[in-house]
Amino acid sequence: MIKIGIDAFGGDNAPEAVVEGAIAAQGVLGADCRIVLLGDRGSIMEQLSQRGCCAELFDIVHAPERIEMGDHPADSFRTKINSSIVVGFNMLAKGEIDGFASAGSTGAMMVGSMMVAKPLAGVLRPTIAISIPTVKGSKVTILDIGINVDCRPEVLEQYAVIGSVYASEVIGQSSPRVALLNIGEESSKGNAQAKVAYQLMSQAAEQGRYNFVGNVEPSHIFTGDVADVVVCDGFVGNTVLKLTEGFYAINASDGVVTPFWQGLNYEQAGGTPVLGVGAVVTIGHGKSTPEAIKNMILSTLHSVETDLVGKLRERF
Amino acid sequence: MIKIGIDAFGGDNAPEAVVEGAIAAQGVLGADCRIVLLGDRGSIMEQLSQRGCCAELFDIVHAPERIEMGDHPADSFRTKINSSIVVGFNMLAKGEIDGFASAGSTGAMMVGSMMVAKPLAGVLRPTIAISIPTVKGSKVTILDIGINVDCRPEVLEQYAVIGSVYASEVIGQSSPRVALLNIGEESSKGNAQAKVAYQLMSQAAEQGRYNFVGNVEPSHIFTGDVADVVVCDGFVGNTVLKLTEGFYAINASDGVVTPFWQGLNYEQAGGTPVLGVGAVVTIGHGKSTPEAIKNMILSTLHSVETDLVGKLRERF
Repeated sequence: MIKIGIDAFGGDNAPEAVVEGAIAAQGVLGADCRIVLLGDRGSIMEQLSQRGCCAELFDIVHAPERIEMGDHPADSFRTKINSSIVVGFNMLAKGEIDGFASAGSTGAMMVGSMMVAKPLAGVLRPTIAISIPTVKGSKVTILDIGINVDCRPEVLEQYAVIGSVYASEVIGQSSPRVALLNIGEESSKGNAQAKVAYQLMSQAAEQGRYNFVGNVEPSHIFTGDVADVVVCDGFVGNTVLKLTEGFYAINASDGVVTPFWQGLNYEQAGGTPVLGVGAVVTIGHGKSTPEAIKNMILSTLHSVETDLVGKLRERF
Repeated sequence: MIKIGIDAFGGDNAPEAVVEGAIAAQGVLGADCRIVLLGDRGSIMEQLSQRGCCAELFDIVHAPERIEMGDHPADSFRTKINSSIVVGFNMLAKGEIDGFASAGSTGAMMVGSMMVAKPLAGVLRPTIAISIPTVKGSKVTILDIGINVDCRPEVLEQYAVIGSVYASEVIGQSSPRVALLNIGEESSKGNAQAKVAYQLMSQAAEQGRYNFVGNVEPSHIFTGDVADVVVCDGFVGNTVLKLTEGFYAINASDGVVTPFWQGLNYEQAGGTPVLGVGAVVTIGHGKSTPEAIKNMILSTLHSVETDLVGKLRERF
């Protein structure tokens, strides 16, 4: 039996959106999987009851404290021991759940990932990634998107490994094309970090570690023509993500509706995996809708089913 | 009499687009200004004649060599001494023209800017900027957009000065809001470079050097709500620009037409000023249309008329 924990306190629309998303996810799960709702038991029961949903379909774990978005992540992780996030990580550590997802405090989720799930041996810096639909309908996985804002080239090279494993195992891409985000196509382009990272990735590719296709320019991230995995440091990756969100908002306000921009709707996206740690952890957008929660639960489950952590451990 | 040099060999559509753009610009110039066309005299005369335009309206300087996009910028600048770009910079140095614009080799234009026009005393690193319409219709000036990909915080602080002067003198914004591009609003956010740059810019603002408004997140670059000038290093700035071009291309292909995206049409934009050097130099997009050439000539003229170089010199 696979058990996926979901933080009922997580996100701006909790607990309503979380419970509704969990019910939707439960409807498509096999009998070998169960969703564990962590939060205030009374509120969760009430939400289930309001939706005419039988509480027996879920495990409910009473974790009455909430880590707020304004709380200091490390401090609150230490002091709010009955919070849904701390309880979730403790259950992960004990093997009582197989994956944990929350649309709550990103900081607290990262503290739990680093302090409880812990980096895999050999991984310099765990990372967070996002997989976004391209114009072609394929997905492009970008990492890091905001955790490691000062990356040595060696860290970027590891992201190529991590991204390649994620894209092949979880996204299901065969021999995913891994590229370095750079401001030109040629190997001589870029800043000092990118130039060295290019060399390291070329050498790794020669050893058959992954399918390195060279540099991808920012204009081609979303075309699907060049890369399935885009490697960059967290400052640049977060810039790409936030600029994209900015254009999304402008388009939404201007009534622009195309399949491409609809695909970028981050309120529907299934969360951001934390990669390179010893457990399956997913962080959702604070504005997650029920659809986003459902997708986040299913993507977390998929990472468990494909043994993503074991596959990554093998590579380091 | 103000004279603006324009490279008739510059850009993918030269000389046709250049001559056509020059004719359009000439039509709106005052009697105190003259356009100097640099390139192959025969081709230029033929283009003017084909358009029924009197050659006497222009100065024509015969510079028969062309620096190609594939040429090594520094080598070709040294060897192709009869090229339009080298002749243009030599005329600038002698005061025979007051500003020089080209949609040709960006590399050769930068070599000329650094070796002939030369950095202003006190300027650590000259820069290139772009001014783009926001959703509100105001313009946001972003710098650096690709020349200095490894910037010390002190260089970013100077870009705040340069951007502020450009926005007030050339764009015409009163007390332009200068922001540091960063991945969060708070001063504690960002990478090591951004954290130090924030402090330097705060100190400069306390001394009244410019109107520093703090960090701007990438999602707000184009809203016009936060900043008139956005400071970043050339790797990040070029990433912002190329990602924007990528979305522009996707939208164009999907038939998305809104005033905002129309405003981002780089084929119409009036070129990129080189700032912090001892002359007015403008670099155009290789795909410049006649409209873009016209706008580039007029923006170059405007920088001359406002004595941008003098204003910048006063600040360093």
